[in-house]
Amino acid sequence: MKRGFGSDNHSGVHPRLLEAITKANVQHAPSYGTDEWTAKAEKAFREHFGPKTEIFFVFNGTAANVLSLKASLKSFQACYCASLAHLNVDECGAPEYLTGAKLITVPTLHGKLHVEDLKRVHLRRGDQHSVQGKVVSLTQPTELGTLYSMEELKEIIAWAKSENLYVHMDGARLANAAVGLQKTFKEFTTDLGVDVVSFGGTKNGLMMGEAVLFLNPALAKDFKFYRKQMAQLPSKTRFISAQFVEYLSNDLWKEIATHSCEMAEKLYQGAKLLPGVEVTQNRQSNAVFAKIPQPWVKVLREKYFFYVW
Amino acid sequence: MKRGFGSDNHSGVHPRLLEAITKANVQHAPSYGTDEWTAKAEKAFREHFGPKTEIFFVFNGTAANVLSLKASLKSFQACYCASLAHLNVDECGAPEYLTGAKLITVPTLHGKLHVEDLKRVHLRRGDQHSVQGKVVSLTQPTELGTLYSMEELKEIIAWAKSENLYVHMDGARLANAAVGLQKTFKEFTTDLGVDVVSFGGTKNGLMMGEAVLFLNPALAKDFKFYRKQMAQLPSKTRFISAQFVEYLSNDLWKEIATHSCEMAEKLYQGAKLLPGVEVTQNRQSNAVFAKIPQPWVKVLREKYFFYVW
Amino acid sequence: MKRGFGSDNHSGVHPRLLEAITKANVQHAPSYGTDEWTAKAEKAFREHFGPKTEIFFVFNGTAANVLSLKASLKSFQACYCASLAHLNVDECGAPEYLTGAKLITVPTLHGKLHVEDLKRVHLRRGDQHSVQGKVVSLTQPTELGTLYSMEELKEIIAWAKSENLYVHMDGARLANAAVGLQKTFKEFTTDLGVDVVSFGGTKNGLMMGEAVLFLNPALAKDFKFYRKQMAQLPSKTRFISAQFVEYLSNDLWKEIATHSCEMAEKLYQGAKLLPGVEVTQNRQSNAVFAKIPQPWVKVLREKYFFYVW
Amino acid sequence: MKRGFGSDNHSGVHPRLLEAITKANVQHAPSYGTDEWTAKAEKAFREHFGPKTEIFFVFNGTAANVLSLKASLKSFQACYCASLAHLNVDECGAPEYLTGAKLITVPTLHGKLHVEDLKRVHLRRGDQHSVQGKVVSLTQPTELGTLYSMEELKEIIAWAKSENLYVHMDGARLANAAVGLQKTFKEFTTDLGVDVVSFGGTKNGLMMGEAVLFLNPALAKDFKFYRKQMAQLPSKTRFISAQFVEYLSNDLWKEIATHSCEMAEKLYQGAKLLPGVEVTQNRQSNAVFAKIPQPWVKVLREKYFFYVW
Repeated sequence: MKRGFGSDNHSGVHPRLLEAITKANVQHAPSYGTDEWTAKAEKAFREHFGPKTEIFFVFNGTAANVLSLKASLKSFQACYCASLAHLNVDECGAPEYLTGAKLITVPTLHGKLHVEDLKRVHLRRGDQHSVQGKVVSLTQPTELGTLYSMEELKEIIAWAKSENLYVHMDGARLANAAVGLQKTFKEFTTDLGVDVVSFGGTKNGLMMGEAVLFLNPALAKDFKFYRKQMAQLPSKTRFISAQFVEYLSNDLWKEIATHSCEMAEKLYQGAKLLPGVEVTQNRQSNAVFAKIPQPWVKVLREKYFFYVW
Repeated sequence: MKRGFGSDNHSGVHPRLLEAITKANVQHAPSYGTDEWTAKAEKAFREHFGPKTEIFFVFNGTAANVLSLKASLKSFQACYCASLAHLNVDECGAPEYLTGAKLITVPTLHGKLHVEDLKRVHLRRGDQHSVQGKVVSLTQPTELGTLYSMEELKEIIAWAKSENLYVHMDGARLANAAVGLQKTFKEFTTDLGVDVVSFGGTKNGLMMGEAVLFLNPALAKDFKFYRKQMAQLPSKTRFISAQFVEYLSNDLWKEIATHSCEMAEKLYQGAKLLPGVEVTQNRQSNAVFAKIPQPWVKVLREKYFFYVW
Repeated sequence: MKRGFGSDNHSGVHPRLLEAITKANVQHAPSYGTDEWTAKAEKAFREHFGPKTEIFFVFNGTAANVLSLKASLKSFQACYCASLAHLNVDECGAPEYLTGAKLITVPTLHGKLHVEDLKRVHLRRGDQHSVQGKVVSLTQPTELGTLYSMEELKEIIAWAKSENLYVHMDGARLANAAVGLQKTFKEFTTDLGVDVVSFGGTKNGLMMGEAVLFLNPALAKDFKFYRKQMAQLPSKTRFISAQFVEYLSNDLWKEIATHSCEMAEKLYQGAKLLPGVEVTQNRQSNAVFAKIPQPWVKVLREKYFFYVW
Repeated sequence: MKRGFGSDNHSGVHPRLLEAITKANVQHAPSYGTDEWTAKAEKAFREHFGPKTEIFFVFNGTAANVLSLKASLKSFQACYCASLAHLNVDECGAPEYLTGAKLITVPTLHGKLHVEDLKRVHLRRGDQHSVQGKVVSLTQPTELGTLYSMEELKEIIAWAKSENLYVHMDGARLANAAVGLQKTFKEFTTDLGVDVVSFGGTKNGLMMGEAVLFLNPALAKDFKFYRKQMAQLPSKTRFISAQFVEYLSNDLWKEIATHSCEMAEKLYQGAKLLPGVEVTQNRQSNAVFAKIPQPWVKVLREKYFFYVW
C-alpha cells in the first residue's frame, strides 16, 4: 500500500506490542479480565494515573468515549463538546443512540473549548423543558492537533466543578499530549480533577484496545454492567492487557508518541517552507493541517493517502 | 493457570492464527475494512456460504448477535428464542438495550426450539398492543451442546418463512456444527434459507473477532451504519480479517472443531463410565453437561475450572 | 354502540368528572402543572397516600407504568413481573424501548406473584453477564381480576426489601382494590413499603389521566425530566388535575369502584348459574373470566362486545 | 390568575370544543380509535389535507413531533432543523431519546431554514462515520412567529426531494399559518410535497390532543405500533376526536386562528409605538418578540406573565 497520512490507524502494531501478545499466548487463562496480564495492566495504569483509578478495557475509541458518557449521564442530561469533536462528527450518532442523551456543541477556534463559550450554552438549569448539561468533554490533543495548556485545562475544569459538571477527556492520543505538555499523565488529568479519560491504544501502536479510566471512582460503580450491555466486554482480555502492560513499561508510550510528533514536526516544518502552502494550526501533537494548492491534490494522492477537508 | 473447562475463551490463540496476525503486520494498510486481508476474508466466506453473502466483522459475539437483530427488527417487533439462549441470559440485556425490541422466550428441552412451541407464542398479529414477532433465533450448536438436525432446521425455517419471519443463527461455534452434521456451512445455512448468521471466531481459536454474515443480502443494506453506531467498527481490521483468512483456509476451521469435539467426546465417554455421574445431554458439539456428586465439586475445583449450574 | 364488556375504557366520563372539567375551564391558568387545580390534586393524593408522596400526572396507563420503571431502573437492571402482566403483554414493548431494561417474567396462577417464584429468577447477583433484577412489579387488582391479600403483599414486599429491590404497584384500577380489601389506599401501599404506584384514572371514569405516585420520594428526584423526555408532560394540566380533585373528594372514587365491582358481581353470580359456563377466577375486582360454550360466542358477540382469550 | 402572555397553553378550552366533548360523553364507545368520532375526524382531516392522508391522534406536541421523526428516521440517520426549533431546545432531549437519531441544527435568521444553510450541513453521504441526514423539519409558523412563504417552502421542499429527504412540518399552530398565508391547509402542505405534519390542537383551543398527519402514506405503515410503544395511544380517543371534528367544522379553526393573530397584531402595533421598545420580528402569526427596557420587566411581570429570553 502507498504510505498513508490519513490516520494513525493505517500503521500496524508496534513490534514490542506484537511480541507482548505472542508472549501472552501461553496456556489457558481466565477470560473477561480476571487474568494476570489484566492485573498487571491495572497496576501500571494506577502508577501513571493514581492509586484510585478504576480501569476497564474496551475494543475501540468510539466505545471508550460513549461508555464514558454512559457512566456519567442520565438520559435527560447533556454533554458539552466542541462542534468538531470526534464524538459529534465521527461516531455516526453513537453517543445519542447508546446514551439517549444529547450533545450540545460549541463552535471552537483551534478545536478548543473555552469557558466563555460553555457559559453561553449552559442555561436553563432545572427547567424541565430543557436537557441539563452534566459533562464537559475535552479532546486532548484536540481533533485539530492542538493542545490545551495546563492553564486552559485548569480554567475549564474549575468552572465545570463549580457548576457540578463532570469532565471527560477524550485521549485517543493522550500520550502525544503528555509529550507535548512535558507532564506526567497524572499531572494533567487526575491532579486537575478530570473524572474520566478515554485512553487510546489503537492510534498509538496497539493492535486494538482502549481503556476507560475512572479517576473519579464513584462513576465506575456500575460500569462493568454497562460495558457488557454495550457489547464491549472482551473475552480474551489478556491480549489487550498484555499490550497495555508493555506500552506503559519502560516509557514505550513516550517513545512512540515522541517519534510520532517528530515525524509530524518534520512534515510541519517542511510544509511551512513550501510556497503556496498555508499551515493552518500550530503543530502540538502529531497532526498537520495545511491548505495546499488545488492542483497538487490529484498528483499527491497518487503517491500518498491523505484527507481533503 | 489451572486447566479451564469453563469456556472455550480460556484457551488462547491457535498458533497458525497468531502467525497470520504477525504476517499481516507489515507496512501501512487502509483501515476500516478496505485492506487486502479483508477482501480475501470476504472471498473465503463467500466460498463457504455462497456468492451473495455480505460479510461484516465485529469485535465479539454479543455484538454479532445483537447487530444481527438490529438489522432485522424494528423496535416494536420481537425475536423468538430459547429461554436459555445466550441472547436471553448472558448478554446483560444488550439485545433489549441496543435494539429496543423484545425477546419472546420459549422453554426448551435439550436447548432446541420446536415449531409447536413457537406457534404458542406467535400470536396477536397486527394487534397494536402487542409486539410483533419477526425473527426466530436458533443457536447451532445449542447452548446445551446439542445440534439441530437437518430435518429440524428445515421444519423450523419452513415455518418461519411461511410466517414471513427472518431466521438468525447464533453460530458462536458454528464450525462444531458443521463437523457434527458432516455438512458444509452452506448446506445447513444458506441452502436452508437462514437469513443471517453470527459466525464465531473467538471461541474457535481466534484472538478476537466475529463475522455477521448476511445470507439474505437485503438485510445488509444499512448495516455499516448500524455497526459504526453500535461502536463495533474495527479500525485495524486486517488483524481480524487475516485470522479469518487463515481459519477458513486448508480446513483449519475443521481441524480445530474436530479436535475440540474429540476432546469433549473423551470427557463425555469418561464421565459416563463414572459411578455417580449422570450425563444429561448427548454430546453433539464440544460441550458436556453432567450431574456430579456434590462433594466432588470442591475437590475438582481445586485442580480445574468449570461451571456449576 | 352495543354495550361493551371488553374494557373499562368503553364507558365514558363520569358526570361529576366532566363537570369538574367544565368548571376548570375559566380564565387563564399557568400550564405544566403550576396551576391551582394541580396543587389541590396533589394535596388530595397526600391525604390518601401520606404526606411525603410525590405526584406526577401523565396521559395514560402505559406511560404511568413505564415511567415508574424508568425512574427505578438503570438500563442493565430488570423488572420482575407476572408473565401475563399488562407491562409484559399489552404495552407493545414500551417498557423495553423506553427504559432499555429487561422484564423477567414469572408464570402465575390467578395472576399473582409469589416469593418462591421470584426467588427462582432472582439469580446471578453481581454477574456482569446477567441483568440485575431491581424492581418487583405487582398489579393490584391483577390482570385476572384477583386481589393480593394484605398478607400476600406483606410477604412479597418484605422479601423485596430484604433483597434491596423496589416495589412498583400497577394500580390501573387501584380503587377497586381498596374497595375489595376494605382498606384505605395508604394501608396497602405506603404503609407496606410500596415505592411507586401507577394510579389509574382512565379506567375509573376519568376522560384521561393517570398519576405516578412516588411513596419513596427519593425516586422522584429526576422525574420531571424523564416525564418530559418521554413526551408525557401535559400542558393544560388543570384538566387532568381537576378530575382527580373531584375523584378523590367525597368518596367519588369509592362510589365508582363499588358500582363497578357490584356490576361484575352480578355478572359473576349470573354466569356461575348458567349450565355450560365455567367461571375460572374468583371475582375480587371488576373482571370476570369464564369459559363459555363455543357456539355462544358468535351469538353473544352480535349484541355485546367482549374479548375471547 | 393574572393574564398570561407566555404561551397559548395558558388559555383554556374553546367553548365549542368543550361542548363537543360533552356531547361525545354518551353511552359506551369502542376505545383506541375505533369509535365514530374518530372516523368523522379522519374524514375531516382528509377533506383538508387530501384523500390519502393517514391520521393518528396523540396526546401532545412533543409526541407528535417525535413520533413523526420516529416514523421517518432510522437510528443512524439525522433530522435537520433550526437551532432554535422546539424540537431542539424545548423537548428535553425527547427526539434523541425516543428515536435514537441525531438532530443537526442550523442557525437561522427569523427562525427560518434556507437551502444554502442546509447544504452546508448535508455532507458525507454514505460515509459510515457520519450520521446520514434524512429529514428536514420546518416549523410553520416558526418559533419566532414568522412564516415561510409559499416560495420559500417550494424551494426547500424541492431541494429536500432532490436529495431524497423527507419533509416534516411542525405545525403546533398550523391554523395560524393558513390564516397568515391565506391558503388552504392542503395548498401549503400536501400540494408542495410535505411528508408528515404535526397538527397542533392544544395551542389552538383544544383541551389536549394533536394529530400526526402522514401526507406520504408510506410512512404510516408501522405507525400504530410506534405510537403504542411510545405510550401515545389514547384509549378514550373519542374525546380527542370529537374536538377535532368540531375544530375542523364550520371554519372554527379559522375563527380561532384569526382572533389569535388579530390580538397579536394589536400587541404588535401597540408595542411598535412605544418609545424604548424594539420589535425584533415581523408579526406573521400570533407571537410578538420585542426588546423592552430592563426596568419595565419587573413592573409588567406583576400584572402579566411573559417570558424573558
